[in-house]
Amino acid sequence: MTNIKDLAKMSGVSVSTVSRVLNNHPYVSAEKKAAVLKAIECTNYNRNINAVHLSRGKTQLMGVVLPVTDTPYFALLLKGIAKRALENDYKLVLFQIDYAEEKEIEALQMLKQKQIDSLIICSRKCELALIQEHIQYGTIVLCEKTTEKSLPSVFIDHYEIFFQALEYLYQKGHKKIGYSVGRKTGSNSSLREQAYRDFLEKYKLPFYSDYIMDDCLYFEDGEKVMQRLRSMDIQPTALIITSDQVAAGIMIECQKEGISIPEQLAVIGFNNEPIAKMMNITTIDIPLVELGGDLFLQAYHGYNSNKQISVKLIERETV
Amino acid sequence: MTNIKDLAKMSGVSVSTVSRVLNNHPYVSAEKKAAVLKAIECTNYNRNINAVHLSRGKTQLMGVVLPVTDTPYFALLLKGIAKRALENDYKLVLFQIDYAEEKEIEALQMLKQKQIDSLIICSRKCELALIQEHIQYGTIVLCEKTTEKSLPSVFIDHYEIFFQALEYLYQKGHKKIGYSVGRKTGSNSSLREQAYRDFLEKYKLPFYSDYIMDDCLYFEDGEKVMQRLRSMDIQPTALIITSDQVAAGIMIECQKEGISIPEQLAVIGFNNEPIAKMMNITTIDIPLVELGGDLFLQAYHGYNSNKQISVKLIERETV
Repeated sequence: MTNIKDLAKMSGVSVSTVSRVLNNHPYVSAEKKAAVLKAIECTNYNRNINAVHLSRGKTQLMGVVLPVTDTPYFALLLKGIAKRALENDYKLVLFQIDYAEEKEIEALQMLKQKQIDSLIICSRKCELALIQEHIQYGTIVLCEKTTEKSLPSVFIDHYEIFFQALEYLYQKGHKKIGYSVGRKTGSNSSLREQAYRDFLEKYKLPFYSDYIMDDCLYFEDGEKVMQRLRSMDIQPTALIITSDQVAAGIMIECQKEGISIPEQLAVIGFNNEPIAKMMNITTIDIPLVELGGDLFLQAYHGYNSNKQISVKLIERETV
Repeated sequence: MTNIKDLAKMSGVSVSTVSRVLNNHPYVSAEKKAAVLKAIECTNYNRNINAVHLSRGKTQLMGVVLPVTDTPYFALLLKGIAKRALENDYKLVLFQIDYAEEKEIEALQMLKQKQIDSLIICSRKCELALIQEHIQYGTIVLCEKTTEKSLPSVFIDHYEIFFQALEYLYQKGHKKIGYSVGRKTGSNSSLREQAYRDFLEKYKLPFYSDYIMDDCLYFEDGEKVMQRLRSMDIQPTALIITSDQVAAGIMIECQKEGISIPEQLAVIGFNNEPIAKMMNITTIDIPLVELGGDLFLQAYHGYNSNKQISVKLIERETV
């Protein structure tokens, strides 16, 4: 393996100069630095890439924080990120950490320690303030609507979408509307709840806390939703389900139980996954792969902007 | 930021000695090396982790090569790998590369360049010989049955499983059996085809090449399978579908078309995903999360063994 001595010999400088270059020490002439970097380039046989990263200040690694990868929402975001990473010769360091806050902090520390060049946080547990402390070390892009302009983001407006879906159901005659989410905490779900409460307020409708169902992420959670519905004194006549997979699970359950959709229960899914098309589920079309791609590009280019991705309601046969 | 000079001062050695330690140069006394490493530990304030990796020879990064992450098979493997990585304080570098061979080679090169400590290849495009050339640089674990003992692996025996599923369908009276896979090439699908041909040979049954359907990975591919079936002169009476998602898609299509399962078409799925349980699909139970966890542990510990994971047929209502 090429060592620092070989590099010194090749570039015609002292070992100390090589180590200065490797450590980004300021007192090295441009000429000598160029000679050392050229030697590093030439000796790519078995070079230790960590030395190269030291010299370049870039790792070509981007961190991605997400809770899970086995739900369509996060899998499709990751697909979009990975596609753009492939095109731009970047590797992804995956933090699939299921909202473990200390692991999210580790991701921020890796950015600080220059082990990754930038970081995408698809869904966070950390306070925004902590994230903001780390933007000096590299680009951090969030996938949520940030009021704080200093934090770049690519997002969909969950408040607006939810309000629109609720209005749509109301126009179709529904006044008892429940909904399901992955988790109740988190900025996206806070916006959804705000939209829900504002909607109830607008039409003077009562609030039932059990109409908000959390921990619904997978196809099989459709069974859970139907169990919860059965336990309610006043059952909702319509549901907004923030995952087409869960909505499809609800349809299968309703089929088994002889509940007809949309006559007895209306359902709006989310994402417009292929399963929604095949099962004719009315849904919100969210271009997740493109959203993921935009997250990558924003992190890659270091754009400091807040980009909103638009979505639309797809009317099919479940409302 | 702490630089090489600070480290030298703190550890009471010369700058050259620090650089020798950072570059793993042999001619440094154990005592001096320990002093430098201690100084590196103490100055974790803003340290450049790449310098630490140089000194430790470890990155705490493990590479994972897979084609996609948005199918249950790979998503669940990754879930198992990520779970164990989290427990063992390792980060994953994701190569979601859709069988781009040059990107697979890049992953091998990252191992060679010590940018990652080890590599899991969930599904490969590269020749085994090329992979074998790289085992000198770090542990590489494959997720396939390798006859070559020098390559560690955790695998399921696709030949055995396929033969067992075919025999099961034959005992139920089926002689025209088709099957679907993700891709026809690849070592797992080669084993499946061998099992299929051996089965046909055993019972003196004819081979129809269109009975082997590839590119079937997602729920919506169930529609494609049914379209292909309609175009066949002699249609199969039973299908082995190497994904419960695709099998579920087939069931939805059959429901729409009034084809009754299992009377008119028998279906065996793969993986035993929750969707298979909810839709009562007969399937092969494959513990993918555990398999992923074992892949991680083998790479982490550097075990040089070949571990087979056993699977079983779950009888439900589609055969």
